[in-house]
Amino acid sequence: MTRVRTKTRAKQRLKVIPLGGLGEIGKNMMVVEYGEDIIVIDSGLMFPEEEMLGIDLVIPDISYLLENKSKIRGIVITHAHEDHIGALPYVLPQLDVPVYCSKLAKGLISVKLKERKAELKSALNVVPPGSPFMLGRFKIELFPVCHSIPDAMGIIIQTPLGNIVHTGDFKVDYTPVNGEPTNLSRLAQLGAQGVLLLFSDSTYAELPGYTPSERVIGEALDQIMTNAPGRVIVTTFASLVSRLQQVIDVAAKCRRRVFVIGRSMSDTAKIALELGYLKAPEGVLARIEELKGMPHDKVIIITTGSQGEPTSGLVRIANRDHRHVSITRGDTVVISASPIPGNESLVNRTMDSLFKQGAQVFYDKVAQVHVHGHASQEELKLLLSLVKPRFFVPVHGEYRHLSFHAQLARQVGITEEHIFILEDGDILELGSNAGRVIGKVASGNVYVDGLSVGDVGGIVLRNRRMLSRDGIVVVIIAVNKQTGKLVGRPDIVSRGFVDTNEAKDMLEESCDLVAEIMDHGGKHKAELSFADNKVRTALNNFYYEKTKRRPMILPVMVKV
Amino acid sequence: MTRVRTKTRAKQRLKVIPLGGLGEIGKNMMVVEYGEDIIVIDSGLMFPEEEMLGIDLVIPDISYLLENKSKIRGIVITHAHEDHIGALPYVLPQLDVPVYCSKLAKGLISVKLKERKAELKSALNVVPPGSPFMLGRFKIELFPVCHSIPDAMGIIIQTPLGNIVHTGDFKVDYTPVNGEPTNLSRLAQLGAQGVLLLFSDSTYAELPGYTPSERVIGEALDQIMTNAPGRVIVTTFASLVSRLQQVIDVAAKCRRRVFVIGRSMSDTAKIALELGYLKAPEGVLARIEELKGMPHDKVIIITTGSQGEPTSGLVRIANRDHRHVSITRGDTVVISASPIPGNESLVNRTMDSLFKQGAQVFYDKVAQVHVHGHASQEELKLLLSLVKPRFFVPVHGEYRHLSFHAQLARQVGITEEHIFILEDGDILELGSNAGRVIGKVASGNVYVDGLSVGDVGGIVLRNRRMLSRDGIVVVIIAVNKQTGKLVGRPDIVSRGFVDTNEAKDMLEESCDLVAEIMDHGGKHKAELSFADNKVRTALNNFYYEKTKRRPMILPVMVKV
Repeated sequence: MTRVRTKTRAKQRLKVIPLGGLGEIGKNMMVVEYGEDIIVIDSGLMFPEEEMLGIDLVIPDISYLLENKSKIRGIVITHAHEDHIGALPYVLPQLDVPVYCSKLAKGLISVKLKERKAELKSALNVVPPGSPFMLGRFKIELFPVCHSIPDAMGIIIQTPLGNIVHTGDFKVDYTPVNGEPTNLSRLAQLGAQGVLLLFSDSTYAELPGYTPSERVIGEALDQIMTNAPGRVIVTTFASLVSRLQQVIDVAAKCRRRVFVIGRSMSDTAKIALELGYLKAPEGVLARIEELKGMPHDKVIIITTGSQGEPTSGLVRIANRDHRHVSITRGDTVVISASPIPGNESLVNRTMDSLFKQGAQVFYDKVAQVHVHGHASQEELKLLLSLVKPRFFVPVHGEYRHLSFHAQLARQVGITEEHIFILEDGDILELGSNAGRVIGKVASGNVYVDGLSVGDVGGIVLRNRRMLSRDGIVVVIIAVNKQTGKLVGRPDIVSRGFVDTNEAKDMLEESCDLVAEIMDHGGKHKAELSFADNKVRTALNNFYYEKTKRRPMILPVMVKV
Repeated sequence: MTRVRTKTRAKQRLKVIPLGGLGEIGKNMMVVEYGEDIIVIDSGLMFPEEEMLGIDLVIPDISYLLENKSKIRGIVITHAHEDHIGALPYVLPQLDVPVYCSKLAKGLISVKLKERKAELKSALNVVPPGSPFMLGRFKIELFPVCHSIPDAMGIIIQTPLGNIVHTGDFKVDYTPVNGEPTNLSRLAQLGAQGVLLLFSDSTYAELPGYTPSERVIGEALDQIMTNAPGRVIVTTFASLVSRLQQVIDVAAKCRRRVFVIGRSMSDTAKIALELGYLKAPEGVLARIEELKGMPHDKVIIITTGSQGEPTSGLVRIANRDHRHVSITRGDTVVISASPIPGNESLVNRTMDSLFKQGAQVFYDKVAQVHVHGHASQEELKLLLSLVKPRFFVPVHGEYRHLSFHAQLARQVGITEEHIFILEDGDILELGSNAGRVIGKVASGNVYVDGLSVGDVGGIVLRNRRMLSRDGIVVVIIAVNKQTGKLVGRPDIVSRGFVDTNEAKDMLEESCDLVAEIMDHGGKHKAELSFADNKVRTALNNFYYEKTKRRPMILPVMVKV
């Protein structure tokens, strides 16, 4: 499957291959190869797009890694978001290599592996930032970056050809709520020594200016909670620990108690508290049993549901389907997140329902209750200017984001020929002075649907799509196995096509049509396969003319 | 179906009923009733939401109007957007009442009626603004408002109880590109005389400040076209005639020629030119045949595709599937529209494809190339302050938008008890001094799928949903019609469930399972209906255990 033009000199050169991410290049996985050594950066998953009907998850195609299994020295993780660690339960059982990551990432990865019952033979190693370690001929060093989860890391890779810097997902926040700011000094120092190649986060490369500090949210939350007449329900991403911290801090100040509701939010809070990423003053966090009877103006509830997820805490509350909480007039809801494209209508419906029940709702359009976790244009230029890489590969973004990022790189003086906008699967081969794309490895989307990985392909999805639009008509035709002649009347069963009561006459008529086709001339056994096609075509035309719909038509011959 | 609590005093009171709009209250239709007279405002459609699988269009439920057909004096149209006129081809053949609208609306409605081959017995009347006419006991007057289509109107309705003002969709633009500004003087004059009730557009009630004038787009377009090294391809909504006008004006200035490409864009341009809403200096508009050989820096192309519609001009061009145009390096594309929620990923894919082919793309996030057509908070407050209505009903918006609009109304001094946030179907009964919701009429969504209107209901959609997720398994079981015993081996056919080659063994195993169930004990004829259920349950469990998927299971008994 892998198309690699092998070169004799390939061993003296670096290879770089982005994988996965559903068009956000290199988002889920990056492969860096030199001679006999490969390291993998991240191993994430994507959630399916609208047209991937019934698919649960999408993971990167790792055929290239499986073919070169013996070379892989390890997987290095930048941070613990799903799109960077979520594929580990599927990838590790096949690759069986050690993983290197930060402390929080280890905690969250362990939970994931346990959930999926993935067995792990190799080690899950915690590596502190600033402590280099060897993986084959690569020397690896993590450095802290700011992002919307604690313990996010960038990666420095010393290679025989020079240093590589990978920013991971990052923004520049001089006043982060917890954890360290992005380590600009280390990057400046590296830049002064010379950097061969920079991979940098392009997610927000189309946005001018600077991304605001996480700290501005604290002020907005403070104002909302101080003025709220009753309970305040805050919803955000479960992994956004700094947001939880800000809610807890404001709660302590306003003398309110905090109830963390829902499994995923409670799990993260628990791990973050245990590992020291979340700090709560004595008596602020409360158990759900204490909620009853507590005065409303002393209550803050934190839960998930910022994306309108049907099983989340907030959506259950909005649907009056939650065991402990239902909205009453005077409640305030804060949606401390932006809807991910595709989720807008779910989020809007949830908000409308909250408004109808008398809640006051604050969300990104009407209050500063969320900032995102990625660098905007000025920050990206700052990074490019400090690191001064010879080669630049924008990553983590759709093609247009990479284009904008490349434009920024040209603006700060990086040579046009040294900037590579790759697509997933591209093999970029780099020497000290020049680079080029020499081929492509398998890089399609691998679908996870239920227990199976990769078995749902084009045909299954095409069928689901067709079924979803106009349903199905099954035609059961019993024929005599000797004569091939029709036995009895054909039977027609439909689902998702028409209202079977209202369309009874039309369906009967189509049944007559099938009988006519089958009766037409004495059928020989050999002609039955043609009959199948004839029936399909005739019904297709008949139904389209009557309804302008094209259901899937499935003739079934029963030989009796 | 209609639940109306009849009142003896009802004849002295006004009734107001919003209908249609998929949760955007009163967007598609408003009913105003007094005694024996009903007028209908607008008759629009909505495009289906994601979960309405296979549905083409959604129109309002007009059961209430059909039940009160004899009272209806006419349908008055605010403006010619689909969500305000699109249901006329479905509604008019059933109601057969005259329509009153502006000149451009008449042109576009006629096209719609012809497309749908809808017969029209009653008249389609053009009414100029400022010329009152009687409909039963109502005196109707249109007044110009600014919106993203020319000839948009608000409506003044004189009733025996007082004046009603309906803004239609509007913004306040003091310097519109074509047409008149919103007639604030007339509204102020009415306000001074006293207005009983205001319906006002809430679409952007959550946005603070003012909506910018359409004119700012002209400056952005001017700059882009002056600097573009090659062709410029502009895409926007076909109905946004003022945007076309601005492109033509800039083209004339830059000495470029304008090619209008695609059916819907050409149709609108043609009607707008004929009716005088679009003006093009001699020699600016060009025919497609002239495109070949024209220097690239002399070309502007206008086409549809701002929403990533698969059959639109821009998407065909992006997919290298257009007869006349394909992207070359140096081309500039301007997407002069915002993606409607739900269309983002289609739009993004189109943009990525254009970037890959070397085009420079300007869109709302990176340049001021679009302004929307609805009033923001300051404009809404201005309108409320001029009209000074006794009662206020926010319309055209989802529930949260109406809530924000109601909040603005309270801020400018309208009595809390005189503000009504309705839901579709609510009957608001108004006297001179008080009002209340007295009941509800049928107001569900009516789905149009192919030729049928309203036949696709809950069951059909539920089936499509189920089919779309995990496909279908059809089990054909031949039984002896006398004994009820299994004849031969059951047959299993699946679509959209699993890869039938890879899952062959599992499907065979499930076939054995069915055979076993059918063989178990001598089956009596009477037991066959139970067998059906038994097979379904057993297969459901079997497949879920093996795959964690739940295909639709359709057992078909063939009695031979």
